Amino acid sequence: MRAVAERALRCQRDGNDVVLIVSAMSGETNRLLGLAHQISPTPEMREMDALAATGEQVSAALVAMTVHALGGKARSLLGHQVNVQTDAAFTKARIQTIEGSKVRSTLDKGEIAVVAGFQGVDPEGNITTLGRGGSDTSAVAVAAAIKADVCEIYTDVDGVYTTDPNICPSARKIERISYEEMLELASLGAKVLQIRSVELAMKHGVPVHVRSSFNDNPGTMVTNEEGLESVVVAGVAYDKSEAKVQLINVPDRPGIVAAIFGSLAERNVSVDMIIQSPSREGGTTTDVTFTVAKTDLTRCKDLIEDKARNLGGAAVEYDPDIVKVSIVGLGMRSHAGIASEMFRLLAAEGINIQAISTSEIKVSCLIHSKYTELAVRALHDGFGLDKGPGAGGQA
Amino acid sequence: MRAVAERALRCQRDGNDVVLIVSAMSGETNRLLGLAHQISPTPEMREMDALAATGEQVSAALVAMTVHALGGKARSLLGHQVNVQTDAAFTKARIQTIEGSKVRSTLDKGEIAVVAGFQGVDPEGNITTLGRGGSDTSAVAVAAAIKADVCEIYTDVDGVYTTDPNICPSARKIERISYEEMLELASLGAKVLQIRSVELAMKHGVPVHVRSSFNDNPGTMVTNEEGLESVVVAGVAYDKSEAKVQLINVPDRPGIVAAIFGSLAERNVSVDMIIQSPSREGGTTTDVTFTVAKTDLTRCKDLIEDKARNLGGAAVEYDPDIVKVSIVGLGMRSHAGIASEMFRLLAAEGINIQAISTSEIKVSCLIHSKYTELAVRALHDGFGLDKGPGAGGQA
Repeated sequence: MRAVAERALRCQRDGNDVVLIVSAMSGETNRLLGLAHQISPTPEMREMDALAATGEQVSAALVAMTVHALGGKARSLLGHQVNVQTDAAFTKARIQTIEGSKVRSTLDKGEIAVVAGFQGVDPEGNITTLGRGGSDTSAVAVAAAIKADVCEIYTDVDGVYTTDPNICPSARKIERISYEEMLELASLGAKVLQIRSVELAMKHGVPVHVRSSFNDNPGTMVTNEEGLESVVVAGVAYDKSEAKVQLINVPDRPGIVAAIFGSLAERNVSVDMIIQSPSREGGTTTDVTFTVAKTDLTRCKDLIEDKARNLGGAAVEYDPDIVKVSIVGLGMRSHAGIASEMFRLLAAEGINIQAISTSEIKVSCLIHSKYTELAVRALHDGFGLDKGPGAGGQA
Repeated sequence: MRAVAERALRCQRDGNDVVLIVSAMSGETNRLLGLAHQISPTPEMREMDALAATGEQVSAALVAMTVHALGGKARSLLGHQVNVQTDAAFTKARIQTIEGSKVRSTLDKGEIAVVAGFQGVDPEGNITTLGRGGSDTSAVAVAAAIKADVCEIYTDVDGVYTTDPNICPSARKIERISYEEMLELASLGAKVLQIRSVELAMKHGVPVHVRSSFNDNPGTMVTNEEGLESVVVAGVAYDKSEAKVQLINVPDRPGIVAAIFGSLAERNVSVDMIIQSPSREGGTTTDVTFTVAKTDLTRCKDLIEDKARNLGGAAVEYDPDIVKVSIVGLGMRSHAGIASEMFRLLAAEGINIQAISTSEIKVSCLIHSKYTELAVRALHDGFGLDKGPGAGGQA
């Protein structure tokens, strides 16, 4: 807290208005959830939010005190005090509007505004929370509301990397990245920024600076990079959170696939990669493969098997030992052949591809999880990401 | 929490609307204050309140969850949600108004309202707290706002006793007591109810039932007892929190005493018992004795000694080994001789009286603290308090 307060005061002395958005202290949210789960395995959601919001309230008060103790001026502001209006979806509320005026009037008094992240109020005045990692979203939303020059997100890493440095020693910190690339990387398992915070930053054009809490090095700037010359591949991501589901010998009729995925959607289960194999020669059946989050699998297994039975006894197979590796880059829009280069790099390592999905700026391949590190390193260096900006995309 | 929730649900099933006012969990407020004092010995007051208020917020959410877990309906309500308006005196704010409508609308839905005690908001929307023990005051204030039939205060004792049962085995639980007597007892060191909560109850005519959290026995009803036949002495209290200060050989001139106490009042030090000895025969000096809270003594010592010097070298003596024992009873208004009976009972035990102060319904004597237990027992049984209502006051 002292480091945070000192940094904020330094920033203020440099002539900036400073707003801090704070999360709960390490372990605090888990402590609170633990108290709730002693009462019930499924505690009432409205009360979960009233409970969890105290974590950030404690942090905000303590950080403001620390600024005072260092001779500065600060004021803690809670969700309802800043009027962070959200919908009423307790524990995973979405921000609708924020009043910038309260933060602005605090800044105008020369005070540092210390805003409790992660929390808001619904239209009835109930306390809501934005779900885990919601403090990033709060930060971007406040930055948008007061039209801040930059939203700095402090993390335990130096910035956004070309891939996970833990498994690829040649991973480099990215200096600048576009919102769209960051969004794809976040969706694909890069944990540095919450997807919703990136979406919000893109929508409002808030420049986001992802940097380390532990040093003053510049981190990664996430901005609208459309105008700049883009590297072809900006980063390599991987995601082990999904499991593969295969429906074997499904009748090859129109509407069959829609019936399965429609019922999954009703249960709020997101299906990611979907491949329908071509009908076997002369046959009337096909195989349907898709991936779902491992955490969703248990609650949709019965539904899938039920559907499979109704479809005429199709067998169902599950495989949790898979990983999705992806390459992301704005440059793919204008460079052909990136996907086939990816397949070639994987094949050169003897890695079998189980499924493929693509978007305008990314290609994802599903492979056996035992190849995770091998595949990430091969793609990272194969696309020249070890060599720095401008060197990428020489494939 | 389970016991609280079960009791509330039972009360609701009996046909009552139920509002719970909750305090922080045991140890929680101290934990939070400890965090603040790690930052600064004198943390900023506004932030202290934002911090401390989380204690009751956590309790309110957990109690509401517990009611839900038991199959009932409940809703936690925070100070700002109920609009408990206070002044801006952080850490010791006073309640100005409470909107009953939010609590009422919760009750009208068949829900138990679980209100976070101890907290409010000032006119600018800052979170305030009422000071230690403020939850009792919150309870009475909410009861007044919604015109509740009764405000039950749950404590770790069975009710209000004729004196402290820890030092007087014949102490009895009082069934009914007037606001005025309760107010005197609370001022004189009986810890069961906060003075401000009794004042507020008296002002709004809220009947207060002081009872045990651990059983269903009726406790003590605090009401407007004016119409009932009163016992002469309702209780015996003692207070060890004060120290005696003696100014010796002060010039016996008009305005001298006013000068001393005026400066103490400016420093917000309350002076309790004051005795000015008659001038010594033929002399021009006098002795002035008074008591102040031990906690105030350190911060007014320099001032007192300074004043004493300016008054011509009067000596100052301190004595912390004192106790104030008091008898309280509405009946004193109409019964003469109660004070002299008190002096007689103390003299019979060989206890020297160092100072005396009286009000319409109480007499206090300052004695050496070593006589505390002896004096309390002698007064308690001497005024017949060991024998039950109606037996008292036979002096």
